[in-house]
Amino acid sequence: MAVKVSGPAISAATARVLLCLGEMGAEYELVPVDFFTREQKSPHHLARNAFGLVPVLEDGDLLLFESRAIARYVLRKYKSSGPDLVREGSLEESAMVDLWLEVEAQQYEKGILPIFFQIMVVPVLYGGVPEEKLVADGVEKLVKVLDVYEARLSQSKHLAVDFVSLADLSHVPFAHYIMPTPYASLFQSRPHAKAWWDSLASRPACKKVTAALLTSELSLLPLMDDACLHF
Amino acid sequence: MAVKVSGPAISAATARVLLCLGEMGAEYELVPVDFFTREQKSPHHLARNAFGLVPVLEDGDLLLFESRAIARYVLRKYKSSGPDLVREGSLEESAMVDLWLEVEAQQYEKGILPIFFQIMVVPVLYGGVPEEKLVADGVEKLVKVLDVYEARLSQSKHLAVDFVSLADLSHVPFAHYIMPTPYASLFQSRPHAKAWWDSLASRPACKKVTAALLTSELSLLPLMDDACLHF
Repeated sequence: MAVKVSGPAISAATARVLLCLGEMGAEYELVPVDFFTREQKSPHHLARNAFGLVPVLEDGDLLLFESRAIARYVLRKYKSSGPDLVREGSLEESAMVDLWLEVEAQQYEKGILPIFFQIMVVPVLYGGVPEEKLVADGVEKLVKVLDVYEARLSQSKHLAVDFVSLADLSHVPFAHYIMPTPYASLFQSRPHAKAWWDSLASRPACKKVTAALLTSELSLLPLMDDACLHF
Repeated sequence: MAVKVSGPAISAATARVLLCLGEMGAEYELVPVDFFTREQKSPHHLARNAFGLVPVLEDGDLLLFESRAIARYVLRKYKSSGPDLVREGSLEESAMVDLWLEVEAQQYEKGILPIFFQIMVVPVLYGGVPEEKLVADGVEKLVKVLDVYEARLSQSKHLAVDFVSLADLSHVPFAHYIMPTPYASLFQSRPHAKAWWDSLASRPACKKVTAALLTSELSLLPLMDDACLHF
């Protein structure tokens, strides 16, 4: 029985989960959640995730939320059918995957999310003008992170180990979103970070998921009072 | 050979790691990092963690940072000598641990950290007055989180499963910090959350670590321009 993923394909968090399912060649059913009608705050969705966030994964009676936790579950469940992206057979390698996945969540996302939100969501959804201070703060944080990555990636092809892992893939959705913007230069100007991004973006599972992250689809998104949390 | 943990014992992130080491009965050496002299930004520490944050764990040649990643490593490394706090033998239980650990990192900490910072760090370190708006925003977030926890804990004794896990323990340091303040009522007024906290706080490893988190020691902390990241 295919697992069910509830969430809009254009959500970066949903894309993180779909990317992992794609890497493992797993079947899934994508159940739309309509941001326009705030379906994520409906009683039906709140019964699945009381925080009113996407995505949610249903696998029989098991119900999961938080995209990075779902990603780990998917990679373990289908481990025999795809690449080993969590390396749990090795104490040291799994620790490196965990470490760089935490860096993605705690450092990278706090830089790139406000950039994405201000330069893409604010003008497209709100017809507003990006708050330059928030963009500058995001850029400052992202620059620090990418400087660390550049040094790291000069020594190993990927963040955690010399093999691609969940820690790398988890960066894909937001990076993809800012690649058509001038902020792509933050990656492009760092040769090792650029090579890393190019190798991730060329993976078939990444191509499939990012095709659903077309920036033009942002125009389908609704007004949201707490939109940061939805991505 | 005992692992080395570098970080001040009063840091909540360091305490998270020490708590896991304590639960597993593992020997460790605590290497002080002096916030007062900004040692975490020294070349020596930046060579261990380029983000200039604590804690760092050294185990022979292995060097790790990010407290939740270190916690997982410690719980796996010493799994035969203590309780099973990550449940990796079960696909479903490990997913629940991951899910609620993500909630702790992504939701709970974003509510409780600004409260802690404003009401304890700002007056003690800066001689300043807490910014009421930031405290109120933190309280609003924490209330939502604890409402979800209260519902969850009315059905299971702990967050992930009916056994204590890393997901529960990861909440301890910040909760301990606000317990002597009026904001303890956010926990105390919710009977299941209160019982959950009481059961965690009574664990020997928690008692040992929280003894080092004495609020009076905050007076030892220095002025920091990015202090939120250090805890």
